[in-house]
Amino acid sequence: MPEDYSVAEIAAFLGAELRGDGALRISGLNTLKNAEPGELAFLANEKYASQLGSCNASAVILAPKHSATDNSGDEGSNATQYKGTVLILDNPYLGYARISQWFDRAPKAVAGIHPSAVIATSASIGASVTIAANAVVEANAVIGAGSYLGAGSFVGARSVVGANARISANVAIYHDVILGSDVTIHSGSVIGADGFGFAPDGAGQWQKIYQIGGVEIGDNVEIGACSTIDRGALGNTSIGNGVIIDNHVQIAHNAVIGNNCALAAYSGLAGSATLGNNVTLAGDACVVGHVTVCDNVQVTARGLVTKSITEPGSYSSGMPLMETREWRKNAVRVTQLDSIARRLKELEKN
Amino acid sequence: MPEDYSVAEIAAFLGAELRGDGALRISGLNTLKNAEPGELAFLANEKYASQLGSCNASAVILAPKHSATDNSGDEGSNATQYKGTVLILDNPYLGYARISQWFDRAPKAVAGIHPSAVIATSASIGASVTIAANAVVEANAVIGAGSYLGAGSFVGARSVVGANARISANVAIYHDVILGSDVTIHSGSVIGADGFGFAPDGAGQWQKIYQIGGVEIGDNVEIGACSTIDRGALGNTSIGNGVIIDNHVQIAHNAVIGNNCALAAYSGLAGSATLGNNVTLAGDACVVGHVTVCDNVQVTARGLVTKSITEPGSYSSGMPLMETREWRKNAVRVTQLDSIARRLKELEKN
Amino acid sequence: MPEDYSVAEIAAFLGAELRGDGALRISGLNTLKNAEPGELAFLANEKYASQLGSCNASAVILAPKHSATDNSGDEGSNATQYKGTVLILDNPYLGYARISQWFDRAPKAVAGIHPSAVIATSASIGASVTIAANAVVEANAVIGAGSYLGAGSFVGARSVVGANARISANVAIYHDVILGSDVTIHSGSVIGADGFGFAPDGAGQWQKIYQIGGVEIGDNVEIGACSTIDRGALGNTSIGNGVIIDNHVQIAHNAVIGNNCALAAYSGLAGSATLGNNVTLAGDACVVGHVTVCDNVQVTARGLVTKSITEPGSYSSGMPLMETREWRKNAVRVTQLDSIARRLKELEKN
Repeated sequence: MPEDYSVAEIAAFLGAELRGDGALRISGLNTLKNAEPGELAFLANEKYASQLGSCNASAVILAPKHSATDNSGDEGSNATQYKGTVLILDNPYLGYARISQWFDRAPKAVAGIHPSAVIATSASIGASVTIAANAVVEANAVIGAGSYLGAGSFVGARSVVGANARISANVAIYHDVILGSDVTIHSGSVIGADGFGFAPDGAGQWQKIYQIGGVEIGDNVEIGACSTIDRGALGNTSIGNGVIIDNHVQIAHNAVIGNNCALAAYSGLAGSATLGNNVTLAGDACVVGHVTVCDNVQVTARGLVTKSITEPGSYSSGMPLMETREWRKNAVRVTQLDSIARRLKELEKN
Repeated sequence: MPEDYSVAEIAAFLGAELRGDGALRISGLNTLKNAEPGELAFLANEKYASQLGSCNASAVILAPKHSATDNSGDEGSNATQYKGTVLILDNPYLGYARISQWFDRAPKAVAGIHPSAVIATSASIGASVTIAANAVVEANAVIGAGSYLGAGSFVGARSVVGANARISANVAIYHDVILGSDVTIHSGSVIGADGFGFAPDGAGQWQKIYQIGGVEIGDNVEIGACSTIDRGALGNTSIGNGVIIDNHVQIAHNAVIGNNCALAAYSGLAGSATLGNNVTLAGDACVVGHVTVCDNVQVTARGLVTKSITEPGSYSSGMPLMETREWRKNAVRVTQLDSIARRLKELEKN
Repeated sequence: MPEDYSVAEIAAFLGAELRGDGALRISGLNTLKNAEPGELAFLANEKYASQLGSCNASAVILAPKHSATDNSGDEGSNATQYKGTVLILDNPYLGYARISQWFDRAPKAVAGIHPSAVIATSASIGASVTIAANAVVEANAVIGAGSYLGAGSFVGARSVVGANARISANVAIYHDVILGSDVTIHSGSVIGADGFGFAPDGAGQWQKIYQIGGVEIGDNVEIGACSTIDRGALGNTSIGNGVIIDNHVQIAHNAVIGNNCALAAYSGLAGSATLGNNVTLAGDACVVGHVTVCDNVQVTARGLVTKSITEPGSYSSGMPLMETREWRKNAVRVTQLDSIARRLKELEKN
């Protein structure tokens, strides 16, 4: 269970201005609506400001405009209804994010190698590493200092897990995969499986192309559950620093992802697709093979990128949801669209 | 291998009217087309009625209208061509479903803990539990009476698996996850991984938001293979009773699913999305974040719900399939649709 | 690490015409652009022909038209700028594919059963099998000669893994699954989980239909990571010979796939869907239940097959990507398409 901390400690860590009782003890975080005494809440979205008045949290993180002490009726006036202690920050959401680790309930790892783990004698295990039950580390693999390798996880030959990794239960990392430091991988994910490379043999069958490249992942990368990052056919599949990857994501062989990209659930890159820096793929947004997306592009949910994008901005595809009865009538018209456009042009001529 | 049962026993269990030889032994279930002597078949879909005449099953479950004994040429007449024993039920498909367990080939679990399993001493293991080889149960976890925990599965600290669970091989359940009774989870699924929560830090990087909530799942829930249900950011991700979830499904943090919903493969809910009761998401039907879907809604395959739905009914999106040559011509016109609509209006004015 | 081979050995294996120094040693494969001395490259795509001049590979596989020795300015002239040794083949890409195995970096398996593996005494283990740490093989399962079973993998009761299989770490194969010979399955994949079969019970709840069929997979099949192939409800889910399956693919119960089909990431078949031979589903191309696709069909990325396809050819659906601002204007018009079409017809009448 999380420990508790004084509001003053929290304010100091966040660099927040403290208004109220710094000695109050905080043992959890919660939303404005659900917080109870002993908890810290935050106001990140304007539309929840009206909940301040009835909020039971011991303390709340607020932006300056919501922490005004007057009652003049302007946008800061809600805060005056909140009776508790206030921590003032320009970005309360970021403050909440930064303090959240203090209240994480994940069990603290105790360094050591469980006797049921199977570690090759040639593997190199750093200081203060935790290797949980039934994990397997193969020949010449390296586990960096301070890393945690969960139960039933697998690290293949010659792969390198950098320092301070957190690899959850039942992750599979194949051979010759290089992870930077501070990498988190959730359960069920697979790094370094063969890319989907096959050549037609001219007789209707597929000849496997052995995938002799590897995978290279930067620092501070988080990978969700049941995601896959395939090894390169020739050369590495490559992921930059600070990239965040959700569940069920697919990164095909030789894809290249720049720094600080965000890939939501079911998003993916086909073979040799390239993302610049700070690209965001929303849920199920996919990029086809050999296409390049420049820096600072956002693709909205279910967007399919079939051509390279060279200008920053937001891109979308897909049809809006309709009642099925309406949709049937409209969908059939999509198959007539070219004809509709031609007939319209004809009418315009006359 | 399944045992065999008399037709009379089966009829009694199903509450079916038996017409024919109740002493016949049944050792399997099959379709009308493929059934052999010794097997039980059923007619659930009108379009297969013509197969009754050539059906070799020892017995068939039929609706009253198909079990008429006259030969008058009306819709029941096919049944008269079937020479075997008949079980009459209003809902033959439901009857087939209910009896299917008798013929399940899954190996019967023998209660006991395999010596290679790793169970924390503080974990609480109920009566008649089976824990298979190399499974891992961490501190203070609870495994309810009669549950089965497959090979290589993992149950994290303080998590509760209710009674009569069936957790297949290589499932990962993180810490602080609560499963009701009679929950089935198939291999490769991950319950309680971190939600995809990160705050932009203002300098182009992502600050992780530690996910301090949990997951709460009701009774009689089945979860397929390679599906993910993330833990809440604050508070729990929540799934009601009687929910059925297929493979590759994604339930993001703080999603809420009511009772008796059905989620087919690749369907999913983004963060804080909410489904009422008896909602059906067909394959790849997804709901974006913070959207609410009311009771008794069906979303057809690949539908994308981007706004809350407040009326029961069927909803769809997506374009019909065309030959690629036709599709190319029509698809480009989609990018001109607004112009087409405006020009049409202009013409209508003149 | 891969060994090295002489160019002459490689040419002999490929049946290539050798022009240059057959004694050169080759220790790796690479692209024209990245190859270094000691590596073999290939020219498979016309657009990279211009890289031949600056290619540092010791040898290159070329098609006859690129290996002309004259300098006349025709399309073969680039090759004359390449100073190294040339292997001439009609299909350089296939040549590269065939030779790639020689340079595979995957660790060579050493036959034997790791002491931590748990093998039922009734299981049958063929000659020269490798079973890695913590793998589990249940009662009456069969592992064919020369097969490799990775760490933490699971093979259920009575399942048969044919000869020369390569099953990676953390794969789950349920009971009564039959794999042909030379089958590869990557980590996180699940074969034989229950199909998604439930009958409405008439009272708003779901009655599970126990899935009493199995899975049957042919020879020379490769299955990627985190893919699922469910067992049949009645009878088997069936996959032919030479089928290649990428990551995150879903094959539902009783689907039938012919020979030499290719299914890219996120593609899938719903229940009882059928593919003929040599069908290609591109990324996220899905087939709904009970639909049949004939031989030699290609479905492009994200195509949704909702009706049977009876003619070979290429099929597509989906909207093109647009800037979000443009997309919003056009997408709303899709909901008016039926009205637009009717109004156009009205105008045409006048």
